[in-house]
Amino acid sequence: MTDRTTRRRIAPQSGAAFELGQGDVLRVLDPCGEQVSDLFAFKADDHDCMLSSGRSLDYASRIYLTTGDTLYANDSRPMFSIVGDTVGRHDFLLTPCSQEMFEILYGHRGHHPSCFENLYTAFAPYGIARSRISTTFNIFMNVTVGADGTVAVRAPTSRAGDYIELRAEMELVCALTSCSAEQSNNGTFKPIDYEIVRATPAASRPAGT
Amino acid sequence: MTDRTTRRRIAPQSGAAFELGQGDVLRVLDPCGEQVSDLFAFKADDHDCMLSSGRSLDYASRIYLTTGDTLYANDSRPMFSIVGDTVGRHDFLLTPCSQEMFEILYGHRGHHPSCFENLYTAFAPYGIARSRISTTFNIFMNVTVGADGTVAVRAPTSRAGDYIELRAEMELVCALTSCSAEQSNNGTFKPIDYEIVRATPAASRPAGT
Repeated sequence: MTDRTTRRRIAPQSGAAFELGQGDVLRVLDPCGEQVSDLFAFKADDHDCMLSSGRSLDYASRIYLTTGDTLYANDSRPMFSIVGDTVGRHDFLLTPCSQEMFEILYGHRGHHPSCFENLYTAFAPYGIARSRISTTFNIFMNVTVGADGTVAVRAPTSRAGDYIELRAEMELVCALTSCSAEQSNNGTFKPIDYEIVRATPAASRPAGT
Repeated sequence: MTDRTTRRRIAPQSGAAFELGQGDVLRVLDPCGEQVSDLFAFKADDHDCMLSSGRSLDYASRIYLTTGDTLYANDSRPMFSIVGDTVGRHDFLLTPCSQEMFEILYGHRGHHPSCFENLYTAFAPYGIARSRISTTFNIFMNVTVGADGTVAVRAPTSRAGDYIELRAEMELVCALTSCSAEQSNNGTFKPIDYEIVRATPAASRPAGT
């Protein structure tokens, strides 16, 4: 790691928020294998501009995005470019796991940690309400669609050390999780690591970024 | 039609907004065949509660929704129940066609009518900004997903007279279009009809609904 790179660990079933400058590269790593990390993002100075699954899938004409693809905002501006990817299988169809999901799909009773809670808790200091968090880019999540439209959540294909690299195409506020759903990570909970490779040294950046 | 039913026509490449009371049934009809109609909705008294593709697909575990399925809001409350459907093929993956879509995917120059413009124009009198319109429920739109994830937009399977019926599970503000994209309706532009079957007679309803 250079002095322009920081590396942090997101503990199992938790989340983190951070800012990216234009050109910064976010590297999300699966340190143990078979773990999922949900990502959502807003333009730093305009929270009405946010990540859009529908725009991104439409412009790619594919549901599986990988190196060379763009994640678009709801106003059709590029938000992230995928510049590296050792896995090639991520989901962009489903919302993050939530308390309601565990109740509706699995009949769970009582509190269950969830990516949705971890995302809205992480975004709260930025004044972003939970209602703004839409379909997330679910890194390493392995979702298949059958010919009849059946959606199945399978074990991730990621192995220990695998990663994806996303270059920020605008200044962003992001939140990222270590997934809380048993069904997404083959029944185990593991951490997620992330690194931010800054496009410019810290001394050149505005305070707080 | 009874006195509790109104029927209206949405001219080609245009849109309309209207309110639904809880229990009202919205019937969307394809009067000529092979036309698409994009639908988006908000809770009438809380615009932070809005239609969610990601929640709906997750809870159905299918990308194709039909009779018996529920369209959920972003807070996981049921928003619509599909109570009738003579087609069985609708899309819930893609955002409405937009000026930017015509430019990015097809290199179009100059203004192009779009469902996105028609939706945000229709929602404007309700004080709803364009940034709030997410992935729409694209009625009669025939989108297939290949085993490799390739998304293809095909001619609708709807024929003249086909319809879908959606029961409102909460008080809603909705907007609906006659699609403006050549690629969605087999190269022609046609109208869309809709009827609202009121759960209660007009005299019993609050003014303006």
